[in-house]
Amino acid sequence: MKIGIVGLGYWGPNLVRNFLSADGVDGVVCYDVSERNAARTKKRFPMVELAASYDDLLRRSNVDAVALATPVSTHYSLGLEALRAGKHLLVEKPLTTKTSEAIELINEAERRDLVLMVDHTFIYTGAVRKIREMVDYRLLGDIMYFDSVRVNLGLFQHDINVIWDLAAHDISIMDYLLQQKPFAVSAFGATHFNGVADMAYLTARFENNLLAHFHVNWLSPVKIRRVLIGGTKLMIVYDDMEPSEKVKVYDKGVDISGQDSIYSTLVHYRTGDMFAPRVDLTEALSLVAGEFVDCIKTRRRPVADGQAGLNVVRVLEAAEASLQQGGRVIELAKNPP
Amino acid sequence: MKIGIVGLGYWGPNLVRNFLSADGVDGVVCYDVSERNAARTKKRFPMVELAASYDDLLRRSNVDAVALATPVSTHYSLGLEALRAGKHLLVEKPLTTKTSEAIELINEAERRDLVLMVDHTFIYTGAVRKIREMVDYRLLGDIMYFDSVRVNLGLFQHDINVIWDLAAHDISIMDYLLQQKPFAVSAFGATHFNGVADMAYLTARFENNLLAHFHVNWLSPVKIRRVLIGGTKLMIVYDDMEPSEKVKVYDKGVDISGQDSIYSTLVHYRTGDMFAPRVDLTEALSLVAGEFVDCIKTRRRPVADGQAGLNVVRVLEAAEASLQQGGRVIELAKNPP
Amino acid sequence: MKIGIVGLGYWGPNLVRNFLSADGVDGVVCYDVSERNAARTKKRFPMVELAASYDDLLRRSNVDAVALATPVSTHYSLGLEALRAGKHLLVEKPLTTKTSEAIELINEAERRDLVLMVDHTFIYTGAVRKIREMVDYRLLGDIMYFDSVRVNLGLFQHDINVIWDLAAHDISIMDYLLQQKPFAVSAFGATHFNGVADMAYLTARFENNLLAHFHVNWLSPVKIRRVLIGGTKLMIVYDDMEPSEKVKVYDKGVDISGQDSIYSTLVHYRTGDMFAPRVDLTEALSLVAGEFVDCIKTRRRPVADGQAGLNVVRVLEAAEASLQQGGRVIELAKNPP
Amino acid sequence: MKIGIVGLGYWGPNLVRNFLSADGVDGVVCYDVSERNAARTKKRFPMVELAASYDDLLRRSNVDAVALATPVSTHYSLGLEALRAGKHLLVEKPLTTKTSEAIELINEAERRDLVLMVDHTFIYTGAVRKIREMVDYRLLGDIMYFDSVRVNLGLFQHDINVIWDLAAHDISIMDYLLQQKPFAVSAFGATHFNGVADMAYLTARFENNLLAHFHVNWLSPVKIRRVLIGGTKLMIVYDDMEPSEKVKVYDKGVDISGQDSIYSTLVHYRTGDMFAPRVDLTEALSLVAGEFVDCIKTRRRPVADGQAGLNVVRVLEAAEASLQQGGRVIELAKNPP
Repeated sequence: MKIGIVGLGYWGPNLVRNFLSADGVDGVVCYDVSERNAARTKKRFPMVELAASYDDLLRRSNVDAVALATPVSTHYSLGLEALRAGKHLLVEKPLTTKTSEAIELINEAERRDLVLMVDHTFIYTGAVRKIREMVDYRLLGDIMYFDSVRVNLGLFQHDINVIWDLAAHDISIMDYLLQQKPFAVSAFGATHFNGVADMAYLTARFENNLLAHFHVNWLSPVKIRRVLIGGTKLMIVYDDMEPSEKVKVYDKGVDISGQDSIYSTLVHYRTGDMFAPRVDLTEALSLVAGEFVDCIKTRRRPVADGQAGLNVVRVLEAAEASLQQGGRVIELAKNPP
Repeated sequence: MKIGIVGLGYWGPNLVRNFLSADGVDGVVCYDVSERNAARTKKRFPMVELAASYDDLLRRSNVDAVALATPVSTHYSLGLEALRAGKHLLVEKPLTTKTSEAIELINEAERRDLVLMVDHTFIYTGAVRKIREMVDYRLLGDIMYFDSVRVNLGLFQHDINVIWDLAAHDISIMDYLLQQKPFAVSAFGATHFNGVADMAYLTARFENNLLAHFHVNWLSPVKIRRVLIGGTKLMIVYDDMEPSEKVKVYDKGVDISGQDSIYSTLVHYRTGDMFAPRVDLTEALSLVAGEFVDCIKTRRRPVADGQAGLNVVRVLEAAEASLQQGGRVIELAKNPP
Repeated sequence: MKIGIVGLGYWGPNLVRNFLSADGVDGVVCYDVSERNAARTKKRFPMVELAASYDDLLRRSNVDAVALATPVSTHYSLGLEALRAGKHLLVEKPLTTKTSEAIELINEAERRDLVLMVDHTFIYTGAVRKIREMVDYRLLGDIMYFDSVRVNLGLFQHDINVIWDLAAHDISIMDYLLQQKPFAVSAFGATHFNGVADMAYLTARFENNLLAHFHVNWLSPVKIRRVLIGGTKLMIVYDDMEPSEKVKVYDKGVDISGQDSIYSTLVHYRTGDMFAPRVDLTEALSLVAGEFVDCIKTRRRPVADGQAGLNVVRVLEAAEASLQQGGRVIELAKNPP
Repeated sequence: MKIGIVGLGYWGPNLVRNFLSADGVDGVVCYDVSERNAARTKKRFPMVELAASYDDLLRRSNVDAVALATPVSTHYSLGLEALRAGKHLLVEKPLTTKTSEAIELINEAERRDLVLMVDHTFIYTGAVRKIREMVDYRLLGDIMYFDSVRVNLGLFQHDINVIWDLAAHDISIMDYLLQQKPFAVSAFGATHFNGVADMAYLTARFENNLLAHFHVNWLSPVKIRRVLIGGTKLMIVYDDMEPSEKVKVYDKGVDISGQDSIYSTLVHYRTGDMFAPRVDLTEALSLVAGEFVDCIKTRRRPVADGQAGLNVVRVLEAAEASLQQGGRVIELAKNPP
């Protein structure tokens, strides 16, 4: 199997490195509109082939699949071309800039029986998979909130704002862990330098009083990557800046034991042990590459499939609309596609 | 000078302790509707006098001033009685539950030439005063955002939600540091146990792209007390959980140096030294007590005067309205009182 | 029961506060050679009686026990007087300045059937008791080392060096947890300001390759209070500066699985979960006071008995000798008293 | 200029990578007795040449210099051969296993006018260079102590104990910063698994009450890389685990202001600001490679020259002797070579 990798800027070379060492991959063919990017990649990985154009790449019959690490705005058209050329498709997050485009890609892939996968890298980390395990076993009780902070200084993007750049990660994590769809989204942001919002706060509301919130910021003096998840039984802190104990599970919570008057209930705090499960520290992107290859071979659906990509785009699109309207609450359809 | 202290639950005894050791205070007279609270205070501080009723306390001509540490809903009526009885007034934060009531208290105090002060304890801490100093010297450049997180497990309040309980602190800090009034406020929250919101996110928008945000939460497994302030010249992290280095000042930021195309500007990151100024660790409440006494003696205005109290209530009131309406953006008057 | 408390400088008032609220204590009688200290204590705790002299205190037949918070050099003579006057005795750590004196106090107490207890406060903390529990259940495997760091800026003592001041704490913790006696001790230190060593490193060697080490320092810019305990099965970090998760237990270690050559064994690292057990945060000194009272009532032996005090003094005495001789290794008797 | 790199285990490939991208280096020739190591290196860096034997490498007249990343026990003989073949020499730390051997290498290099450099990587880090700058400007006042902790789980070495493996780093940092030679060294250690000491404590004593101490440990559950340096004017914490603020400078200390009695001086604590200077985060090994190349070109002496290597070996040798003798204090010559 040969993989075509398109877009060799910041993230593309990571895809190259991981596909080169993925089991079952016989070769990597690269392409970038920038010859400088292509040459730099060839220098660093002398074993890759370079394609002369995107068309050249798509025409190669020994290339089974395409991975796109190009700007978001190109995902839809380049992806559609790849699918139409019969290639399986891995797309950098977020999948597209519009839900309608995401749906088209999903349908096209389905029609042609091709694998469509989104590079939601974080849901392949040991930390997030461990938390999902705990969710699946219902260890957390009812989840009350999902609170995410992803802030640091830079890197500014020119073509997309901080929501599409950073919040895309956290929304994909939320979607994977909560397995529910929000009914309302809002976003506030500010633009200081570059014409695009460089900081933003997103809120997503779910049934059953579940609230999700995201703080993304390119202008923070300190780097914070932290998710708090509050369950009625257990609470979790996932701190990606911790070198090893990334997930801490707290046996903490609130117990209700009757009422102390007709007006108010008796609330007790519960504080027990904390534990930090060992998490697999394998590079997530190597698991992404591995899953893509495996799904192609076995025609199974990847965890980060087109639907997962669509779920994320749907929230991003609503957040963008809210941002443009000064934080107006955007309602989402009850039963979206 | 004698001080009457009313409300001897959680915070009142701290007022008693600090007024007892304040210069210029000759005695403290206490009152609480709960005889158990009163007795416990008398046991711990044998030197205080107990009043038989609030009326009894107000009738005592040797009591010059009253400090209220009672539930928020009582601040207005008890405060008004105290002012009408000719007593100077210190009120636990927040000043009142409505802006209209805050304005009435301010007017009453002015009419009678009495000191009206709010116990915005945090603005008397060494940390916040040090940051204000830097703001006053314009060291931060333009302030781009104020981001505050105040979360922990408990203590649940029965009569007020988490916004009135916790965000009141941070809004008072913001008001003191930014010295501006927001033009729009919104709030999202969730209620899980007690009939009142136990977690909430507030956004306040100001002119010039300045954005303020507050996360308050009674359901967090970890205790976080952290404010990020982003200026164009310097950025600040104020972490109240740090035992000594509470304020860290980062010489970090973004420089714009022309354009790299017609579409986008060239953005450079600047990373310089960090420094943590020594901050005064004197108990803030002792400075609150000292300022109240000094203002009574000299008839000067306290830093945390009625207007400061009103500014905070105004934001809280709007946040409450937004919370009730599912996060609808509440516009505030351009030139409020 | 009445308790006489002697020495009202830094630590004495803490004893007063805790004995005043201890069950079964009817009153506290205080004495200090400094009238200023005595008056300050009386002001803070109006319910205590003041004795006119140490003799006065000892002559009072309704005083059942004496707690000494006086300088170390006075413990022996004052303690002996108290025992001879028939009083049970609690002595601030370290018990005495010489092993011979410690033995005399032990013998005197035994002869008169009086309780002799040392205020090894730390072994009454929830954290240390939790670790002891794990040691008792043999969860750690063989203990390989005990490494302690207790450093900060100040407080300089005039009469004793940093070993007697700070290391006394850690040696008492070690003695309680390891339940073994070292066969050799050495100490290195330096003196910069006050004529007494203000920083020192102690090593204590035990059978079976168990090594203990202590870093104590009055000249550190940061405050560190941390013990590492390495077992063959589990490893522990006890960090007293952590507000809540003071004890962290690591399922980490080394496994030996045969040899990879005639020269060397195959060593594998094991990294599993970490957990932080909830620890009781009750003020340790209140448990010290409680245990002293209970031992008097029931005539049982306190955990921190004279023998525990002697064990600590024995190590301190050897460390002092080593320090005086530039770090010479001091051998200790195999079967000490 | 071509560089021969010998030893392609753990560290050698890092040398290859850095010399490949060093200015002025035209090629890299590699050799390892293990063909597997050689093949793996060739695969990762297709542009290197492989030599058939060490002799082959030394015979190549276009190879100007040799870098040794072989086991310590081979440094002397392989290094001597390289120098005798007229090659400049860079040796992995520590330089040799004996001072006598280090002296021979120094003399041989001098006689032949060849560059001899030791890979004391840490003294080329931005953090250590920044501290040295402050030392050079006498900003710290008199240095009172140097306290180093370098502990983690693994990696066990088979051929050398933890002192030669880990403490070599810290001793090179100490030597670079203090620029003094200790007069006495002692070391305590313990051996649990592998026949070599896996944890150790070293003390080095200097004139003027300056004390240095090193804790090195392969059996710690947590990774600590921290140096405290106490000066009479400023104190420094160098924490290599911090991602960015690696060096913190504390304006803290002790002031002496007369005597409060004939027995003791009045000691005051001084606590001022803390600052964390920006430190250059360039990979230190690239600076090592750059300096080696530059010294060859200009025939100047590297900062980490043979004498620096000898200074470190001298302390290691004494520590080893002390370790073998149960911690006996080893005196060092006043005026060593």
